[in-house]
Amino acid sequence: MAMEIERKFMVARRPDLAGAKRTEIEQGYLALGGGDGQAEVRLRRKGDQRLLTVKGGSGRTRTEEELELDPDRFDSLWPLTEGRRVTKTRHLIAHGERDIELDLYSGDLDGLEIAEVEFPDEKSADAFEAPEWLGDEVTGDERYLNATLATKGLPR
Amino acid sequence: MAMEIERKFMVARRPDLAGAKRTEIEQGYLALGGGDGQAEVRLRRKGDQRLLTVKGGSGRTRTEEELELDPDRFDSLWPLTEGRRVTKTRHLIAHGERDIELDLYSGDLDGLEIAEVEFPDEKSADAFEAPEWLGDEVTGDERYLNATLATKGLPR
Repeated sequence: MAMEIERKFMVARRPDLAGAKRTEIEQGYLALGGGDGQAEVRLRRKGDQRLLTVKGGSGRTRTEEELELDPDRFDSLWPLTEGRRVTKTRHLIAHGERDIELDLYSGDLDGLEIAEVEFPDEKSADAFEAPEWLGDEVTGDERYLNATLATKGLPR
Repeated sequence: MAMEIERKFMVARRPDLAGAKRTEIEQGYLALGGGDGQAEVRLRRKGDQRLLTVKGGSGRTRTEEELELDPDRFDSLWPLTEGRRVTKTRHLIAHGERDIELDLYSGDLDGLEIAEVEFPDEKSADAFEAPEWLGDEVTGDERYLNATLATKGLPR
């Protein structure tokens, strides 16, 4: 997809995850992006899938392109993300028409829980009614960008 | 390829280009890379070819991976390189076993001429004997990185 529309929330109370589909995610940043307009460029291993993702812009709606990488290319590039990595377990939780992605972080970020929801358009993003287990919205809060978490750790 | 071994030179005297194969190159930087270990991520249009290239490290030998992009993806990402672009015409000049790439820059960098030579290994890079039309070597000189030229312009 060319545009990504996404809202992000803290988790007030972790829901029952017994039936949730879970995926291990390991990701690292080739480039962190930032205020000077440069793009964020991420490597992600998600189960057997290996992706290079470019994101531009900031806030709720960003340009996003995902490219599949073969294992050799991924392995060649992965060392370039050293010191800028995050691991988490993603849980998919159905809520009305949407899947909420609940990420439980591990490693240095152990204990952090963040939920994300992707939308097909701005209208449905506006209309989203969060379940009561979601807490404060942190969409566009740079402290909760994975690129920030990967380099600066937990917000204080 | 996973590693790129390349030497770069100023041009003391432009050689005869009448028989040289030439290609128009337009490139822009999604991410500039730099001293903090982040990778350089470049979009390049070279004739009909559209590439996303990641380079890591600095100096003569760098990690490099090139991915082909379809036109839609290229067009979606290209706006993210605004303000960090370079255009040049590449001329291929045979010299012994090697092709020397002579880049004549246009636009804001009009008049700049830089030659590059790629090598299959360090030994052949060491053994390279530059023709007399090449000038000072600028391999590893950050002022002559295309990412620097794209944002800071001609070295003063």
